[in-house]
Amino acid sequence: MRQSQLFTKTIRSVGAEEVSINAQLLLRGGFIDKALAGAYSYLPLGHLVFNKICKIIREEINAVGGQELTMTSLQPKELWEKTGRWVTPEEIMYKFETTKGQAVGLAWTHEEPVTEIAKKFINSYRDLPRAVYQLQTKFRNEPRAKSGLIRTREFVMKDLYSFHASEADLDNYYEIVKAAYLKIFKRCGLNAQVVEASGGAFTKKFSHEFQVPCEVGEDLIIYCSNCGWAQNKEVCQNETGDKCPSCKINDLTMSKSVEVGNIFKLGTKFSASLDLKYHDEAGESQFVIMASYGIGPGRIMGTVVEVSHDDKGIIWPDEISPFKLHLLALGESESVKNKADELYNKLVKQGVEVLYDDRSESAGVKFQDSDLLGLSYRAVISERAGDKIELKLRGNQELKMISEDELLNTFGVQ
Amino acid sequence: MRQSQLFTKTIRSVGAEEVSINAQLLLRGGFIDKALAGAYSYLPLGHLVFNKICKIIREEINAVGGQELTMTSLQPKELWEKTGRWVTPEEIMYKFETTKGQAVGLAWTHEEPVTEIAKKFINSYRDLPRAVYQLQTKFRNEPRAKSGLIRTREFVMKDLYSFHASEADLDNYYEIVKAAYLKIFKRCGLNAQVVEASGGAFTKKFSHEFQVPCEVGEDLIIYCSNCGWAQNKEVCQNETGDKCPSCKINDLTMSKSVEVGNIFKLGTKFSASLDLKYHDEAGESQFVIMASYGIGPGRIMGTVVEVSHDDKGIIWPDEISPFKLHLLALGESESVKNKADELYNKLVKQGVEVLYDDRSESAGVKFQDSDLLGLSYRAVISERAGDKIELKLRGNQELKMISEDELLNTFGVQ
Repeated sequence: MRQSQLFTKTIRSVGAEEVSINAQLLLRGGFIDKALAGAYSYLPLGHLVFNKICKIIREEINAVGGQELTMTSLQPKELWEKTGRWVTPEEIMYKFETTKGQAVGLAWTHEEPVTEIAKKFINSYRDLPRAVYQLQTKFRNEPRAKSGLIRTREFVMKDLYSFHASEADLDNYYEIVKAAYLKIFKRCGLNAQVVEASGGAFTKKFSHEFQVPCEVGEDLIIYCSNCGWAQNKEVCQNETGDKCPSCKINDLTMSKSVEVGNIFKLGTKFSASLDLKYHDEAGESQFVIMASYGIGPGRIMGTVVEVSHDDKGIIWPDEISPFKLHLLALGESESVKNKADELYNKLVKQGVEVLYDDRSESAGVKFQDSDLLGLSYRAVISERAGDKIELKLRGNQELKMISEDELLNTFGVQ
Repeated sequence: MRQSQLFTKTIRSVGAEEVSINAQLLLRGGFIDKALAGAYSYLPLGHLVFNKICKIIREEINAVGGQELTMTSLQPKELWEKTGRWVTPEEIMYKFETTKGQAVGLAWTHEEPVTEIAKKFINSYRDLPRAVYQLQTKFRNEPRAKSGLIRTREFVMKDLYSFHASEADLDNYYEIVKAAYLKIFKRCGLNAQVVEASGGAFTKKFSHEFQVPCEVGEDLIIYCSNCGWAQNKEVCQNETGDKCPSCKINDLTMSKSVEVGNIFKLGTKFSASLDLKYHDEAGESQFVIMASYGIGPGRIMGTVVEVSHDDKGIIWPDEISPFKLHLLALGESESVKNKADELYNKLVKQGVEVLYDDRSESAGVKFQDSDLLGLSYRAVISERAGDKIELKLRGNQELKMISEDELLNTFGVQ
């Protein structure tokens, strides 16, 4: 699109209360806007990034047989009282009454409703296994909303829920989803580590978190840089400097870390509370065995900015860059403008995602904005470059002077 | 996908409280599930239909220059007090407090936040016009939630907001969006009429509603079947039987009707309350002129079912059918099963959307479910049909016996 038509502009400075790098850069770039503490709007550029993350998640979760659905945010008190989660120590659920006097709360997770829905469709071992997922907003009355997109009161989660007839079947699927999660993070440009963490009240086994070491993180992980063994400090019996208990080669290291996803064997916790049963091959009634798998696309976006930026701005990984290419036309010369217009039209016609800086701004402003916005590639057309185009990867200092044909080839246009 | 793997099944009967046809058929087909009065989950088949409606909306709104964003549901009291909409006579906003004691409400519309955001980016006549839209959940403390998906407490809206420097520019864009809306409804299989309605407190002019005459509707419209002139009864000075005031040929008729969209000139109501100004070419400060344009994709889905069904089930219009083709394999013969498996694999490989009923159910059950689900096309493979495939459009009684190649051709596979 033409930058002169873009709804947002870059912003010089943001409030002093924004201490995290992701909040600062995303606000300055016009990717997001803060409505209140812990609640951000995703403006057009941010929405594009967010959508690309969701697209990656959908592709990988569809590939492991997940069927997408959407549940409600409004939740009836009666359902949540059955699992004992209407009242929680943290008072995490926003609650209010309808005009009819019905007590409702806003879903901060969806195990209860998904189990209730599954009761209508799962009756027999023939109906298992099943896996459904949602990509939708959750609300949490979060006492410590902070760190930009990392911890908010309103956020989209991808939650996958799986239903099984046996522990063995669950264990098998759990590993398949674990592998899909690693693919998702990799495609988003994140190097996430699988970390053992508490299984909570539901199981004596570990759950698994996907952690990205970085300064803004609220978790502490202890890990081995040789073999990848890692545990959340909350459950770890070892300390920094101990030999790795797995490979016994390296010493263990500790790092602050952001949890970008987790996977969790729920066992029969929810099926027993809400009476989700199936008939096995012998005709016996059994509780369905469940697991849940969460990823926050907004938190991925914030974490990517934390680990992928320089002092000039964001460096978007290629697959989640809002546009692939930032095309800059410098100066007021008609021939430069015409050449840039023509190239832009060619690229758009061929389906290349290009943001075209056609504004009447100085070269300095255009370069500064381009670095802040951080699209994968930057192409510059100017009088000085003549017939050539200056192409640069955002994450790389190297400049290449190439012809228009070479540029078109770079973006798959013949 | 294979129907044996589908998360949902059809349901024999639904609660007696479900009086509307759309709720009955959508619940029986497993398209939706009711969480509480006026709040429905969209299960996998329903989610597919819903997504197709949203895709159509996005394509047509992008085509008129709309830039997509997402705003927050959590809204601060202070902002809404400025426009006098924190307290409304209908108490339509759900309200509660955060752990920090901050009063927040759930957005039931987004004029306030979008105006607040626009203030950060619109300063000059050069920044106008702009148009942004959202496709996201709204919450309304609705006293009369009823009629299935037609009136709910939690629903997704596409809201487009446009910003202009002059009335003339707004008037011009308003007509462009009106045309885009008619395209959207047509692609969704609805014959929507443009109906003049009250402009509300903001303007003396009419606003425009897009109405689909049907029994479940809560509105009454008076219209001319010759020239298309139509007004909401609330503002109409004419009565049934009067000569049409426009063409003066036909007599006016009245009908119950569902409002599937509306477009609304807001003028300076919100820009004045929230101080959204721009500098004109003479350097003078002026209030921005605004309009808003709403469509409810869930309400479209419910209305389509109301106007497009028979006594056996739903008849989905082609472009929003959850899958294009329902492939039924009848009987237990291995050769039928193999032929159907092969055809299914070929179709999937070529990207044809096909639901394959591979279950061990009787022909009667399969036909009954297929009619209820209402996909555009049904193809039957059976011993009786031999080498041929029986193809039928859901909305048509005619059966065609065709070869596999002819079937593949019908779905664009060479």
